[in-house]
Amino acid sequence: MDIQAVNLADKLAQIGDHWHPRVVGDVNDMQVKLVKLQGAFDWHHHATEDELFLVLKGRLTMRLRDRDITISEGEFVIVPHGVEHLPVTEEEVHLLLLEPATTLNTGTVHTARTRETLERL
Amino acid sequence: MDIQAVNLADKLAQIGDHWHPRVVGDVNDMQVKLVKLQGAFDWHHHATEDELFLVLKGRLTMRLRDRDITISEGEFVIVPHGVEHLPVTEEEVHLLLLEPATTLNTGTVHTARTRETLERL
Repeated sequence: MDIQAVNLADKLAQIGDHWHPRVVGDVNDMQVKLVKLQGAFDWHHHATEDELFLVLKGRLTMRLRDRDITISEGEFVIVPHGVEHLPVTEEEVHLLLLEPATTLNTGTVHTARTRETLERL
Repeated sequence: MDIQAVNLADKLAQIGDHWHPRVVGDVNDMQVKLVKLQGAFDWHHHATEDELFLVLKGRLTMRLRDRDITISEGEFVIVPHGVEHLPVTEEEVHLLLLEPATTLNTGTVHTARTRETLERL
């Protein structure tokens, strides 16, 4: 059984693109993912999956239909399933995601940025 | 619905004791917890729950029956269910835990440090 320390900075250094999550761990039926973001994503929601966004670097704006939430380094936000959201950043953001393994990055819609399968780092 | 940014440092500042996790978020059937550790815990395992330990401050040693794993700030380890483990620290460690909401801190054993119910911060 492969139990070892995972260094977030080392894993992030292997990511060279944006909006492309990589899986770095499994906790029961949930996955831990790392992703770099810059710019605006697409409006979407998840039918059954809650999502936790922990900001490791930078500042993330999570747009909801009725307001915006700012998440700075060292902060997280949990977007419950069913809630439409749109992540936006001005500068590059490094993010740890925690969500069910079944989660598709674009939720119930398919866009050019949908990732059907995710690599592991 | 209460969707808001949660600041880890602000929550940790409200914790004045050791080995006493507080719940700071729910992601489907998982919970995010914060805890401060110092010294040695008790050997235990969890029958069905995997546990993620993300070190926010300090350095954690996770003793397994066959070896020790060192987890430094900015690193995490996932201990799968069924694996006996014993967290040990020399100095105070600040930790983010991610585990199923059903997880009891001392696993399948009850000790003086078992916490049957956890407060929310």
